[in-house]
Amino acid sequence: MSSNSFGKLLTVTTFGESHGPAIGCVIDGCPPGIAIAEDDFAHDLARRATGRTRHTSARHEADAIEILSGVYEGRTTGTPIALLIRNTDARSKDYAKIAEQFRPGHADYTYWQKYGTRDPRGGGRSSARETTMRVAAGVIAKRWLAERHGVRVRGHLAQIGDVVPRAHDWNAVEDNPFFWPDAAQVAELESYMDALRKSGDSVGARVTVVADGVPPGWGEPIYGKLDGELAAAMMSINAVKGVEIGDGFASVAQHGSVHRDAMARDGFLSNHAGGILGGISSGQQVVVSVAFKPTSSLRLPVRGLDTHGDDVEIVTTGRHDPCVGIRATPICEAMLALVLMDQALRHRAQCGDVGDVAPRVPASAPAPGTSGGHGDG
Amino acid sequence: MSSNSFGKLLTVTTFGESHGPAIGCVIDGCPPGIAIAEDDFAHDLARRATGRTRHTSARHEADAIEILSGVYEGRTTGTPIALLIRNTDARSKDYAKIAEQFRPGHADYTYWQKYGTRDPRGGGRSSARETTMRVAAGVIAKRWLAERHGVRVRGHLAQIGDVVPRAHDWNAVEDNPFFWPDAAQVAELESYMDALRKSGDSVGARVTVVADGVPPGWGEPIYGKLDGELAAAMMSINAVKGVEIGDGFASVAQHGSVHRDAMARDGFLSNHAGGILGGISSGQQVVVSVAFKPTSSLRLPVRGLDTHGDDVEIVTTGRHDPCVGIRATPICEAMLALVLMDQALRHRAQCGDVGDVAPRVPASAPAPGTSGGHGDG
Amino acid sequence: MSSNSFGKLLTVTTFGESHGPAIGCVIDGCPPGIAIAEDDFAHDLARRATGRTRHTSARHEADAIEILSGVYEGRTTGTPIALLIRNTDARSKDYAKIAEQFRPGHADYTYWQKYGTRDPRGGGRSSARETTMRVAAGVIAKRWLAERHGVRVRGHLAQIGDVVPRAHDWNAVEDNPFFWPDAAQVAELESYMDALRKSGDSVGARVTVVADGVPPGWGEPIYGKLDGELAAAMMSINAVKGVEIGDGFASVAQHGSVHRDAMARDGFLSNHAGGILGGISSGQQVVVSVAFKPTSSLRLPVRGLDTHGDDVEIVTTGRHDPCVGIRATPICEAMLALVLMDQALRHRAQCGDVGDVAPRVPASAPAPGTSGGHGDG
Amino acid sequence: MSSNSFGKLLTVTTFGESHGPAIGCVIDGCPPGIAIAEDDFAHDLARRATGRTRHTSARHEADAIEILSGVYEGRTTGTPIALLIRNTDARSKDYAKIAEQFRPGHADYTYWQKYGTRDPRGGGRSSARETTMRVAAGVIAKRWLAERHGVRVRGHLAQIGDVVPRAHDWNAVEDNPFFWPDAAQVAELESYMDALRKSGDSVGARVTVVADGVPPGWGEPIYGKLDGELAAAMMSINAVKGVEIGDGFASVAQHGSVHRDAMARDGFLSNHAGGILGGISSGQQVVVSVAFKPTSSLRLPVRGLDTHGDDVEIVTTGRHDPCVGIRATPICEAMLALVLMDQALRHRAQCGDVGDVAPRVPASAPAPGTSGGHGDG
Repeated sequence: MSSNSFGKLLTVTTFGESHGPAIGCVIDGCPPGIAIAEDDFAHDLARRATGRTRHTSARHEADAIEILSGVYEGRTTGTPIALLIRNTDARSKDYAKIAEQFRPGHADYTYWQKYGTRDPRGGGRSSARETTMRVAAGVIAKRWLAERHGVRVRGHLAQIGDVVPRAHDWNAVEDNPFFWPDAAQVAELESYMDALRKSGDSVGARVTVVADGVPPGWGEPIYGKLDGELAAAMMSINAVKGVEIGDGFASVAQHGSVHRDAMARDGFLSNHAGGILGGISSGQQVVVSVAFKPTSSLRLPVRGLDTHGDDVEIVTTGRHDPCVGIRATPICEAMLALVLMDQALRHRAQCGDVGDVAPRVPASAPAPGTSGGHGDG
Repeated sequence: MSSNSFGKLLTVTTFGESHGPAIGCVIDGCPPGIAIAEDDFAHDLARRATGRTRHTSARHEADAIEILSGVYEGRTTGTPIALLIRNTDARSKDYAKIAEQFRPGHADYTYWQKYGTRDPRGGGRSSARETTMRVAAGVIAKRWLAERHGVRVRGHLAQIGDVVPRAHDWNAVEDNPFFWPDAAQVAELESYMDALRKSGDSVGARVTVVADGVPPGWGEPIYGKLDGELAAAMMSINAVKGVEIGDGFASVAQHGSVHRDAMARDGFLSNHAGGILGGISSGQQVVVSVAFKPTSSLRLPVRGLDTHGDDVEIVTTGRHDPCVGIRATPICEAMLALVLMDQALRHRAQCGDVGDVAPRVPASAPAPGTSGGHGDG
Repeated sequence: MSSNSFGKLLTVTTFGESHGPAIGCVIDGCPPGIAIAEDDFAHDLARRATGRTRHTSARHEADAIEILSGVYEGRTTGTPIALLIRNTDARSKDYAKIAEQFRPGHADYTYWQKYGTRDPRGGGRSSARETTMRVAAGVIAKRWLAERHGVRVRGHLAQIGDVVPRAHDWNAVEDNPFFWPDAAQVAELESYMDALRKSGDSVGARVTVVADGVPPGWGEPIYGKLDGELAAAMMSINAVKGVEIGDGFASVAQHGSVHRDAMARDGFLSNHAGGILGGISSGQQVVVSVAFKPTSSLRLPVRGLDTHGDDVEIVTTGRHDPCVGIRATPICEAMLALVLMDQALRHRAQCGDVGDVAPRVPASAPAPGTSGGHGDG
Repeated sequence: MSSNSFGKLLTVTTFGESHGPAIGCVIDGCPPGIAIAEDDFAHDLARRATGRTRHTSARHEADAIEILSGVYEGRTTGTPIALLIRNTDARSKDYAKIAEQFRPGHADYTYWQKYGTRDPRGGGRSSARETTMRVAAGVIAKRWLAERHGVRVRGHLAQIGDVVPRAHDWNAVEDNPFFWPDAAQVAELESYMDALRKSGDSVGARVTVVADGVPPGWGEPIYGKLDGELAAAMMSINAVKGVEIGDGFASVAQHGSVHRDAMARDGFLSNHAGGILGGISSGQQVVVSVAFKPTSSLRLPVRGLDTHGDDVEIVTTGRHDPCVGIRATPICEAMLALVLMDQALRHRAQCGDVGDVAPRVPASAPAPGTSGGHGDG
């Protein structure tokens, strides 16, 4: 019921402010016996971290995970897993002036209106620093999904500004700072981002995450739908303004004879649905796309208000990302993994006696298409 | 925790199958003292109903609400409000053949895989008939929001296939069978839909719903965000494939200097955010857009599978909507109203002592724009 | 989150007022494939019903269950099961005067204070009529527990006023109107109750319910403990003032060397714990005892207040039970069954891969003792 | 949904093992603006702590609270409050042998059966060390209740073994190591406990906690009842075997003409109900009694089992309390405060517009009586 908790059976509760002493999370409901160590979090945390390339904020956090509970002799015990990261590079002086200003496009004003107070240091609780713990929790979910069900969760950038990939190669994604699936475009993107950074402006991005190997039957009808929970999960990430499953908004202009995915003994013939029908996985690739707005913190001046109600011109000189969407790929992957694992546990609870059901249709090749391509690579 | 329940404090639980004896809902957590009678549901239920024009399914249900509990002497008592509608026009024989077939684009196969069984009559639980109870519950939420907070919830169609409104006039919306905001286009749409119906095909739609008068401060951070819950609410509606808040996916190509909504003492200068920042309402118009896929039930044949695992050609001859999105406007309105009321109650719980906070920025004029226009009309 | 819902994965939501048109419930999360028909509810509903003997209220309800959803061709489908009972013997005129009075010992005054209104007809929502739906839902839980896990749930009266059983024979329990485990005492109890009824007074009762065959491992630590949820479940029944697990309050005067249940390969040597350790079942008989207060509605006058704030003398002439605890046995059984089934599903979700764990200690003979005896009979 | 979380709107999630690196909690949903500092926790933590007198375990923890989030400039911000305590006096070597044994009366065997693994160091997650965080969270709840509503939460021991207080004086309670309300008996108790400790045995206890000043109307009907949630809260504490509201099990032998609390304009005439009717507070003193079993860890040998399934004789030489109930008073107080605050927030959510309702009956003097006396002192 806590609004800082996520998931019904695998429940992640996060805490911490951007410039407070620490951030952390409590992961409850995790099955026992999963091997996990503090080092296992490093890879995905580094993928999300700032300060690794010139294209993200200069803030450099060690992001060293301490496991406080729930793991004994290297394996989960079934009791709550608490993870802690001390904040080390918080320069709150950067935000001194901001304490009396409401930055447009930020949560400054809305937190103030809600609570009558706010922690202005680095955006406080509304900072994307919170997403660090989503990524950490996602590491455990990814591992369980892979080991227990052979499910693989991956993601890539599918658009920056008005640039879209011209090819789709999963092998390229992790070899450039943009999670971009087309190696041939990386130089172009570097220039694009350099120019953007010099201009002082920012731009939005589109991230696509997919899960291969999801068995049919995960998800619950009506208000517990797999796609409904994915929508909530993605929209809860900072700066997200839209979520699509499969063809998403492109479905609006499609005809039913095209959109509905025909099926045969050999497999589905297309995947416009993005692997979910009636809120339940079909066994095809689950495809989710997410729209990130451009960063609002710019050194370009903007009209704003201060806490006394006076008009002010606001210039933000702190460390910020010119495109927050770039680092969002591992965050979206984590949310996809967490939703899937939670649904897998719920499915086992209610339908654990159903067993394998015939006939089962193979996943078949995923549809290339509107989501920027997300083939089997 | 029930996946057939929605909302944390104002909790709506629905039940019933398309061709079962009845559908119904239980609304719990409703404040006492709200005047409500069985007739009050008729208007919105009629807006959602099939069988009123040739552009929707021919099924004609009386949709007569019986209030079973929670109302005494015409007012809510604070105890659960149970609403019941008997199904009267269920022609299950239409679906006899379907019982042994998995219709592509439907939940037939996924329910079968999940539960090892399914109620095939009219789609059973996966039928959009369930949304009747969302609309009914939404009637109470709309009333409370209007009377208690002056909030007005409205919606319109913003796209059918590739047709978009050329003008935006709220007064036009309720005067045509398409919830279309441009009266001048209605004849064109009638022809479009007639041709579509004759072709045996279907098409998708985009619905935009807005709430005016929402005070700043509604919503909760992180996993209880107003936009996160709206995304879940809308994605949980049958046939929805995408959800946007404010500019949504258009934000991807925007620059931060454009997207961030500047603010001044006189009001916000734009509303690209759709009235939500950091998961909390800003006091501007809340704007949500929803993508509906085209109906999958067509009399055009499609490759499918039967329950024995054999390839079959499937032709659907039951009564279906050529564009399910048309009737979806009141459903999306209802979900918006339910989410807002739930968040309003939660806000009062935690922040009931905060009171009015200065400075408060007026809503100002909403941005015309990418969402097809949703001005004050 | 609804306060009219119970259970995390197997969620029962009830609705309805004592003298409203109907009462009902929605059971969500139930596994598919359970055979269930309307007649299956009759037995337990009759055990709970009033009007069957002179020792309970004269109200006679048909308690005919209508299944509205969630069952297809005689088996559960996994979608919500809605059950409905029309109220047929509501004589609201009996309560006309009561509408302006707060009956001592009832919820009249507290509902009034909470909601500023109340449905006074037969106690409205606060009537024990609500427990009918608990019993109905419990029928499904009992069946699943028996068929899937070989768990048997039973109960008996363990005290009426200051009368306690002198022997314990399960075979006697269902053969007398008091669920009394000692046939030799029944005549004495008949006289006791007849005298009580003539006096116009009422008396409390103690009910003991047990579950045999519960495997070790059900329950969750800390705030999801099996005993914690049993306590909530029992205390939520009308008129309950106390709950004990195993030896309960008798443990206070015990020494640790006596209370702790020694264990050996052949089985546990005693069961003071009542089958639960650390919130998790041990494999022994689960034993719960419940204290019911005496009915407050008496024809004996009592000082009370009316809605105008004036002192009044209140005499209740409606139909009431001289000992509400008598009919409570099936209600307590139902709550025990519902908690166990919910926990069984949750256990399967988190620990479904753990499998059978060695060494497993047999349940052994349950301890006769403080709870009035609850042997294997 | 997490089983390590407690409360619907004020949600406390705890984590940590007895001999792990740390224990902690996350408190979500707390209203903003409450003054709180790290020192504020010291008083109640010391009341709960071991190692302060010879009558409790010798383990001495500093119990130094670090506030990790949710507090800015000395006041709560409305975001999650994370509290952390490092474990400093964990002597896991004491438990080396225990790792391969199941101690009777402990959760060793049940955790093993549930999870197929367990953290044996000091009982791991099943240790009463977890209750430290309940007390910490309770400090905030007590403060809010006192400042916002004038509610006072207190407790005392009401029985140790077969010793009961002969007088009731609130002023005595905090002046002896037993939270005993009769100063004249303290010397006798010291001797009693010394003899018990020497014998190597342990004994149970009864704790009574009360809340004065609770307004009428807190609590929710049916499954959200104030007493139902109190029962769950208390039963979730380690070693608890029974919970009573008001007269509790003594109600069984009472007549209705005695038990029902008559009311008049001047106030209630008795309080057998313990301040709760129909699950909702009546405005009288809320009275809860809790039964604690005797400690199972004794140096007296007992038959037990090892992890290989062999019979063993178990002797526990670690540091343990001869009567765990002694330190339980502040834990029970904390749970009472947390339940009340959560219900207060929920009441404001649903009924915030109801306002003060006439007529309101004064609390009047609480009934002395079966619960060991809990007068206004």
